[in-house]
Amino acid sequence: MRVLVPFDARAPKTRLSPLLTDDERRDFATAMCRDVLRALDGHEVTLVATTAVDAPVPVEVDDRPLSAAVNARLAGETAVVMADLALATPESIDRLFATAGDVVAAPGRGGGTNALVVRHPEFATDYHGVSFRDHRRAARAVGADFRTVDSFRLASDIDEPSDLADLLLHGTGAARDYLVERGIELGVRDGRAVAVREGESF
Amino acid sequence: MRVLVPFDARAPKTRLSPLLTDDERRDFATAMCRDVLRALDGHEVTLVATTAVDAPVPVEVDDRPLSAAVNARLAGETAVVMADLALATPESIDRLFATAGDVVAAPGRGGGTNALVVRHPEFATDYHGVSFRDHRRAARAVGADFRTVDSFRLASDIDEPSDLADLLLHGTGAARDYLVERGIELGVRDGRAVAVREGESF
Repeated sequence: MRVLVPFDARAPKTRLSPLLTDDERRDFATAMCRDVLRALDGHEVTLVATTAVDAPVPVEVDDRPLSAAVNARLAGETAVVMADLALATPESIDRLFATAGDVVAAPGRGGGTNALVVRHPEFATDYHGVSFRDHRRAARAVGADFRTVDSFRLASDIDEPSDLADLLLHGTGAARDYLVERGIELGVRDGRAVAVREGESF
Repeated sequence: MRVLVPFDARAPKTRLSPLLTDDERRDFATAMCRDVLRALDGHEVTLVATTAVDAPVPVEVDDRPLSAAVNARLAGETAVVMADLALATPESIDRLFATAGDVVAAPGRGGGTNALVVRHPEFATDYHGVSFRDHRRAARAVGADFRTVDSFRLASDIDEPSDLADLLLHGTGAARDYLVERGIELGVRDGRAVAVREGESF
């Protein structure tokens, strides 16, 4: 599969600032991207980055907004996989790519579209707002059939401190290792798993 | 499959009180349970309820804590499916039941265990705390192999206002209809879908 992985290397993951410093968030975002690239191993992957970055795959720098940068590169069958899906595995990616449909989406929590496979020439992405709903509508508007893949791993983009608990529990790659190395560990608050800095009370 | 659906009918879903009144939360919990029972249609389902309730399946009243009420009923191959999985579908349930393993779990967000299939005589549930981690450990402790099913629908227990947005976007059953009927609709805040009361500013 031809795959685009958009990656914003500038000021990533600001919502994690309660737990991670600026430098840590940058390193963590890079570790998550590395995990996504590993889950995509064997595919024809291009990293579409907002600034020049080192990566084990070809990099194209494009500082336009996400949707414009992606739409400029949709051609034939193309997948778009977000760089913060740190729980993605080859199995969950396989399930996405094997799902038939003109447009196949992996919904993210809170209305996001964490991954897409586009096989319809008139479909364009729009990541602003409740993108899952907008992509479903956009597919219908051009007569494309719209399917979803039901995956917790692909639904879990890592944006907020509460997401880090899921990563600590279910992750197996570089991003999880990075958290553990920085002393981020599992705690429990109100009966839910949360991520905390080692030794911090909460 | 023999299936237990635990249902707390007393003071359900207190975390939804910012959006739903006491009476609404009770009705909503009942609607979610109805959706879960429909997704389980064709299986041998028992509702294990904290108080007497009307239901289209056999009801056993048990007011002990969740783990005790469930463990007393594990016998042979038994599944345990939470009553608040309002996004569950027959397909996601099929995938869970078709997964081989002595213990098969559908993780919930935040460390929960939203559904289980137990095929090992020495395994017992413990829903207190980070139950996914505890169930993984408990399976290993009795020499049972532990598998997971990767499902967004089964990972989405509906506990908090933010979960209602996922239900509005991805639901198709009685619980979603109930929200719509009560004037709960999708809004957008900080780029994420949220559920709001019709006409409310936020």
